[in-house]
Amino acid sequence: MMKNKFGKRISIEQVEEGNSLMPKFDDNGLIPVITVESGTELILMHGYMNEESLDLSIDTNLAHYWSRSRKKIWKKGETSGQFQHIKEILIDDDQDCLIIKVELDGLGASCHVGYKSCFYRKVDKDLSLEFIEKEKVFDPEEVYEGEENPTIL
Amino acid sequence: MMKNKFGKRISIEQVEEGNSLMPKFDDNGLIPVITVESGTELILMHGYMNEESLDLSIDTNLAHYWSRSRKKIWKKGETSGQFQHIKEILIDDDQDCLIIKVELDGLGASCHVGYKSCFYRKVDKDLSLEFIEKEKVFDPEEVYEGEENPTIL
Repeated sequence: MMKNKFGKRISIEQVEEGNSLMPKFDDNGLIPVITVESGTELILMHGYMNEESLDLSIDTNLAHYWSRSRKKIWKKGETSGQFQHIKEILIDDDQDCLIIKVELDGLGASCHVGYKSCFYRKVDKDLSLEFIEKEKVFDPEEVYEGEENPTIL
Repeated sequence: MMKNKFGKRISIEQVEEGNSLMPKFDDNGLIPVITVESGTELILMHGYMNEESLDLSIDTNLAHYWSRSRKKIWKKGETSGQFQHIKEILIDDDQDCLIIKVELDGLGASCHVGYKSCFYRKVDKDLSLEFIEKEKVFDPEEVYEGEENPTIL
């Protein structure tokens, strides 16, 4: 049961210059979300929400995503204990992307591979990847024991 | 003609723990891109690249996107003069999202509505939007005179 009602997108002016939340969900019913650590402003991850997970996120202040690999609502931290407490939500000009600024529970990490941020590698000129995080914060095999890896090839 | 060859995604281990760029393009041939201002770390916009625009971006160090509304390669700044010079590219764990860190030409703005960042509004508890950028950097009607608004309802 949805607690929040999102506005209907009627005009470009309302969407871009208005004061009402009118999020656009794509053909799969999803909106991309950039998750940032509140305070450090570090980009932690890029995920997706459907209408229900956005509603839950706003209602509980805990980040809920839509897991595209598991095809279900994904309350971040449910397995790892690393919940994300939402401090602020931003939306972009055409309201088809969100930023959530969060505080992290537990070890203060967010990436299922064990790093703090999912963006732990940079692309060099020769297309090789360089690790900018040198050490994992946690051991994913311990934290996610028995769970399937969400990465899709 | 593509200058860069991206790696083939063979195993999860190579994708997550490896040193080779193996970007995943979605069913529409696109990868999401978070654009950040180098130095300030401000998130400016969220866009998409196809294989060709990623190739061009890496080759020229100028941000090229795929415009979903115009359905063509979009060299950012071509109309406005506000080119984005790429200083760094990061990729996430499963290699299906990029961050590009850029320096901005011109007025130092990035949003087609006239603000510096596309994320100029925050979502309040009652779902109303509050403007966190108080003034536009430029007048879009002047800069984009005669161009169609890219926002899709």
